[in-house]
Amino acid sequence: MNKQNNTMLCDYYELTMANGYFELGKGDEISYFDVFFRQIPDGGGYAIAAGLEQVIDYIQNLCFTEEDIEYLRGKKCFSEKFLDYLRNFKFTGDIYAVPEGTPIFPNEPILTVRAPSIQAQFIETYLLLTLNHQSLIATKANRIVRAAQGRAVAEFGSRRAQGATGAALGARAAYIGGCSATACTISERDYKIPATGTMAHSWVMMFDSEYEAFCAYCKLYPDNATLLVDTYDTLKSGVPNAIKAFKEVLLPMGIKKCGIRLDSGDIAYLTKKARKMLDEAGLTECKIVVSNSLDENIIRDIIAQGAKIDSFGVGERLITAKSDPVFGGVYKLVAKETENGDVIPKIKISENAGKITNPHFKKAFRIFDRDTNRAIADLLSVHDETIDESKPLELFDPQETWKRKTVTSYEARELLVPVFKNGECVYKSPTVDEIRAYCASQVETLWEEVLRFENPHRYYVDLTEKLWKIKMSLLEEYGRASKAK
Amino acid sequence: MNKQNNTMLCDYYELTMANGYFELGKGDEISYFDVFFRQIPDGGGYAIAAGLEQVIDYIQNLCFTEEDIEYLRGKKCFSEKFLDYLRNFKFTGDIYAVPEGTPIFPNEPILTVRAPSIQAQFIETYLLLTLNHQSLIATKANRIVRAAQGRAVAEFGSRRAQGATGAALGARAAYIGGCSATACTISERDYKIPATGTMAHSWVMMFDSEYEAFCAYCKLYPDNATLLVDTYDTLKSGVPNAIKAFKEVLLPMGIKKCGIRLDSGDIAYLTKKARKMLDEAGLTECKIVVSNSLDENIIRDIIAQGAKIDSFGVGERLITAKSDPVFGGVYKLVAKETENGDVIPKIKISENAGKITNPHFKKAFRIFDRDTNRAIADLLSVHDETIDESKPLELFDPQETWKRKTVTSYEARELLVPVFKNGECVYKSPTVDEIRAYCASQVETLWEEVLRFENPHRYYVDLTEKLWKIKMSLLEEYGRASKAK
Repeated sequence: MNKQNNTMLCDYYELTMANGYFELGKGDEISYFDVFFRQIPDGGGYAIAAGLEQVIDYIQNLCFTEEDIEYLRGKKCFSEKFLDYLRNFKFTGDIYAVPEGTPIFPNEPILTVRAPSIQAQFIETYLLLTLNHQSLIATKANRIVRAAQGRAVAEFGSRRAQGATGAALGARAAYIGGCSATACTISERDYKIPATGTMAHSWVMMFDSEYEAFCAYCKLYPDNATLLVDTYDTLKSGVPNAIKAFKEVLLPMGIKKCGIRLDSGDIAYLTKKARKMLDEAGLTECKIVVSNSLDENIIRDIIAQGAKIDSFGVGERLITAKSDPVFGGVYKLVAKETENGDVIPKIKISENAGKITNPHFKKAFRIFDRDTNRAIADLLSVHDETIDESKPLELFDPQETWKRKTVTSYEARELLVPVFKNGECVYKSPTVDEIRAYCASQVETLWEEVLRFENPHRYYVDLTEKLWKIKMSLLEEYGRASKAK
Repeated sequence: MNKQNNTMLCDYYELTMANGYFELGKGDEISYFDVFFRQIPDGGGYAIAAGLEQVIDYIQNLCFTEEDIEYLRGKKCFSEKFLDYLRNFKFTGDIYAVPEGTPIFPNEPILTVRAPSIQAQFIETYLLLTLNHQSLIATKANRIVRAAQGRAVAEFGSRRAQGATGAALGARAAYIGGCSATACTISERDYKIPATGTMAHSWVMMFDSEYEAFCAYCKLYPDNATLLVDTYDTLKSGVPNAIKAFKEVLLPMGIKKCGIRLDSGDIAYLTKKARKMLDEAGLTECKIVVSNSLDENIIRDIIAQGAKIDSFGVGERLITAKSDPVFGGVYKLVAKETENGDVIPKIKISENAGKITNPHFKKAFRIFDRDTNRAIADLLSVHDETIDESKPLELFDPQETWKRKTVTSYEARELLVPVFKNGECVYKSPTVDEIRAYCASQVETLWEEVLRFENPHRYYVDLTEKLWKIKMSLLEEYGRASKAK
């Protein structure tokens, strides 16, 4: 595997700030930062967390090389003492995070860092980059897979990905979100995502005839012959030639499993016609795979129109999350620790109420109804709070506080798990297959109304009374300070 | 620099096809493939080519490791002879490409490969991935930079990029397209893109007061003090505190150059107010930098509204090309060579006329008007054609062939330059600064009508009479073959 050292993949201001904290003797003050996001892509009801395993790799491989330090010296911006400090730079703090594959909601921490200020600040860019990227693609994949209603969806988009890691880790995220495979070979080698693929149009064009190209392929790969039938004319040439090749090469070998792939034209119409032709030829076990700029909307539509499709290959619109290609995770200071260990909550004010942060070192609970095993709401608390499940729990909307609801038979599961403790990794990433299965099982716990593609029901992320009061008092404090001017 | 071996970053079908060609003894047949695209992102009038330097790196580093071969053996799909062949796999063919920074148009080759079929086919995925990604971002950056009308635009998007190379090479592409700098440190170390940056909101929040945070920063970086003024309240707190800090720390040092950055709120309104406050305080040399989900449309609008802005930081909407995040470059077989070296043109048919390829091993010329130095049209010819500039040149629309135009005082410059010859690199990539300057100079040669953001004039990519006739005869041939069924 390519082990990439991504230490220098940081915003330059992380370094100017780090040098500043160092010079001012503030570098070792303990800070708390939360990663959270504000809006669910595509107007969906939930997102899927992904990218934690790469965060762990990054933290464990943090290291400035002599070449890096030489480059930084050349910027004439950093003190020699600071550059010397970077030589032994490593992460010594704590990280808590939601496991990959977890459905996540706006304004709740999906990762929390507690570390000396320089370290906590420095890792911002890469943490956001990798969590934003993989959560974006896992979320999109989950939409597309749900639209396919049980049919397999393979990720086909490497050539349109935004860069090499966009392809390789995008395939990983797509798998976590529910895709069954990828076309990207390196993603299997490095991340164990099953890689598949058969032929391009150029295979067909390399031979003197389409029929010859199909026969050659069936002979070479009799157990995995999916023939691309739209190089010249799908119904007049492609499907008839495929049928002929299957009958002449595969059937005599006793092989009935085979497939055709359509990559252009009106998929609903063509697959119905092709299915009929295949069935009439006795090739009822021949699968129909389709690709061609698909996404959840097109898939939903063509299935509704009765298209005869066994599986999908989805490319550019998945690997770039084309309809909404930014996952807006942010990294905000939520608390600082005094020398004697007191945690002081911090808040970021904004004129836009939705942009005001939830302060403090927090816990996040998902409240499940014990009778239905459905998730009712998430609840953020101060880090030292516990929930006594034997007692009724009152939830209230943090904006419209008169909206209250009491739950009784519930389970409160903590969302954030310890990942690093004093710089040591204390978490073992599950396999991608485990993550993928976990994701599917957790999406199952969401109410149907939350799963809706458009205008889903808003899932609540509430605050405990204690946390809410702290937030209100911080807001009042700033309000007073502001009026005093 | 991280030297990445991206050999395995290929679609799996490149390997199944390669194994097939190898087994059938077709692997050494010479094929020609073109990279071209069909649609300009955002409905613009042109795109900017980028990514060639990474194509060169990729080709030069092509190499299957023993670990790769072991992985492939495990797929139980490839012959031992083929796996053995991969041990010494390298590229031995020719590549021609348009230099980075060149304005490019739909349906013309931006890169042409001539190589033994296995090699030519195999490199498809990575070539498309890197050219698509960087051309996408360079094209978007060029739009944004043009909207800024001479004000500097810095690329700020790493945290929202689609993966690590999305950030690092995205910054490179943005610079080629005209950005002045990036926030991405690794892009300076590895690709010489100037990296800049000052502070985040967390810097301000780390101190007991905003004013204290600003003074500390000014003392640390008096020559580069750009203070972020929107952590609490831009006009009531941020700008007044910045003015105070500049006056108390910088002015006594004789420093008048400084800056403020706004990252939220109504930019047009706030910058006008802030400019007035700064000017009234005598800080006329203080620059105003703005960021916050900007793109070419917002920049155009706020400039039109008289916003007082000296430079822009553009993040997520640039680094993901949010409004149209896919560059649809494709890789199509255009010719094959017989054993005695004859080049046989190949065509890919489609029911959609726009998807029919331009066949053959071709040259591409850009025709410049000698009087204005403006580009008139591009002209594709068969590889063995030349253009005699002393004679009038008749251009005609390949679809509507009655549309004809004769040019006289013109220069015909070849767009594609040799990059590899018999597997050897014969091209030295210019520096990114040279590429950036070349891009700006070439965009200058386009008519204003082509530069329009919306509904630009279509720039013509025409075919020579000879190439057009070959294309027509291939279409007729397929038409006859299709009717014969």
